[in-house]
Amino acid sequence: MRNIKIIGYGSYVPENKVMFGNQTRYRANNEETQVDMNVKACNKAIESAKLDISQIDLIICASAVMAQLLPATSSLIHEKIAKGLTMPAIDVNTSCSSFLTALDIASHYIELGTYKNILIVSGDICSKGLNKNQKESYELFSDGSAAVVVTKGNENEGIIDSMQRTYSEGTHLTEIRGGGTLEPGYEYTEQNKADYLFDMKGKEILLTTARIVPTFLNDFLSRNNLSIDEIDLIIPHQASKALGMIMDRFKIPKEKYINWVDDYGNMVSASIPFVLCKLLENGDLKDKHRIMLFGTAAGLTINGIILDI
Amino acid sequence: MRNIKIIGYGSYVPENKVMFGNQTRYRANNEETQVDMNVKACNKAIESAKLDISQIDLIICASAVMAQLLPATSSLIHEKIAKGLTMPAIDVNTSCSSFLTALDIASHYIELGTYKNILIVSGDICSKGLNKNQKESYELFSDGSAAVVVTKGNENEGIIDSMQRTYSEGTHLTEIRGGGTLEPGYEYTEQNKADYLFDMKGKEILLTTARIVPTFLNDFLSRNNLSIDEIDLIIPHQASKALGMIMDRFKIPKEKYINWVDDYGNMVSASIPFVLCKLLENGDLKDKHRIMLFGTAAGLTINGIILDI
Repeated sequence: MRNIKIIGYGSYVPENKVMFGNQTRYRANNEETQVDMNVKACNKAIESAKLDISQIDLIICASAVMAQLLPATSSLIHEKIAKGLTMPAIDVNTSCSSFLTALDIASHYIELGTYKNILIVSGDICSKGLNKNQKESYELFSDGSAAVVVTKGNENEGIIDSMQRTYSEGTHLTEIRGGGTLEPGYEYTEQNKADYLFDMKGKEILLTTARIVPTFLNDFLSRNNLSIDEIDLIIPHQASKALGMIMDRFKIPKEKYINWVDDYGNMVSASIPFVLCKLLENGDLKDKHRIMLFGTAAGLTINGIILDI
Repeated sequence: MRNIKIIGYGSYVPENKVMFGNQTRYRANNEETQVDMNVKACNKAIESAKLDISQIDLIICASAVMAQLLPATSSLIHEKIAKGLTMPAIDVNTSCSSFLTALDIASHYIELGTYKNILIVSGDICSKGLNKNQKESYELFSDGSAAVVVTKGNENEGIIDSMQRTYSEGTHLTEIRGGGTLEPGYEYTEQNKADYLFDMKGKEILLTTARIVPTFLNDFLSRNNLSIDEIDLIIPHQASKALGMIMDRFKIPKEKYINWVDDYGNMVSASIPFVLCKLLENGDLKDKHRIMLFGTAAGLTINGIILDI
């Protein structure tokens, strides 16, 4: 067990709401940037930790898409919240599950005493990349951000285990092909516009996920000699409206996991930490001891953390 | 000390050479991609480690610029070298010093037994982003890639200490503003083309670096009770032709560090691991025990690792 605890948390969604039937989505206005959103979540997290920014020893930005191609988004956030200070800024990316990878890395740093207080922020502005012609994804995603401050925990709190697997046969099921070195921004034309927008093969992802998630979950629990009954709450990535159906399939009862897809949609990298932060804000985790953070991500990656709080 | 050792290494530069006066630079041809280059370095590293890909427990891609906006570049590499296997793929980004951050993270994973054999690859294809109108940077950079496999080391080998600091007052001194969420690919026009290309304020970086590097180096050595004489060799980021001048200023003699800027230029994230791999390939580190990896990076980040080999 790597002893960590969350001592600060902050979540943020833009004011602007869009409704698709009964589905509520949040979309930034034109002036609001990914960096702005992340800065708001960071400031809330630091304030709730009752720390001064100078007491943060490391900033990790764990978002799916970068604000600029260079430098790291964490540097741009550092500039807004910590200019003049010199704590390191690092980007960690496993797309939608970046927060879990970052939390896992943070737990290793804390366990070995490399850093004391670590700020992790995950936030994506999907509205900058959605394709209006792809109804399924266009109506699914929300902009949002969430940040936590983690530090050394007591002996009964922390990460029991983390597990990540990447199934690269699914690499191209979720992608934004353009913008990086394979198809640079300056190759954009009206004809290839779709390459610069989010592209999700929803049905294939669902089929692949349904095939690989059960094995992952079984392996993850069994290597810890745990059954699902010993987990108090699962915070899954709010991947899609199929979340309930998938959980049914795994025979996980409704009261055992959070499904806010109707209210918030899929917030990309912010989905899992957003739910976590909201629950912490509302005091809804006070009677919970063992939670599981769990999510599928572009890559195709599956990521899980069992966390005692 | 976190005991790790490098058991495999591989470096790669494209065949195509370009000369600027006496300066040799390497530039990929149009068919060669960043992913291709990284795959070549990875395959060499795995082969030299005498491992099968199935024995790699984690793939970290530590490059400065992404191949696609989504998913992580490590997934695209995973697809080429490990399709059908499920080891996790993670991107870590601190621009030019990404390799050091990744090596540091790997050392924490190995120290706590989370992963055994970790493949780290750093490779950038700068030729996709250079601005012909900015002579200084256009004539400085090379495409290249380097990969290592690290595993548990013996008790006298590994990372003595790592230190990273980010000075975000220098965030905008080196950047590619376009391509991410702040200025998406689809906003590209002929008029704003420069935003989608690499932009470096060389003189300001040199001035900032000259101011902050001495303090960083002094702090890094003194917190380890080491003097520069106790380091056998420094592998610095091959930042620019000013490397020799800067090292002179720190009174570091020529035989104490590698300066291959004339022969290879600045390979972005691959610079430090490329030199490291070449030295290992050539057996040039056999009489060395304590080396320092050291570099400045966009962010502005300074990164150092003292490694006993």
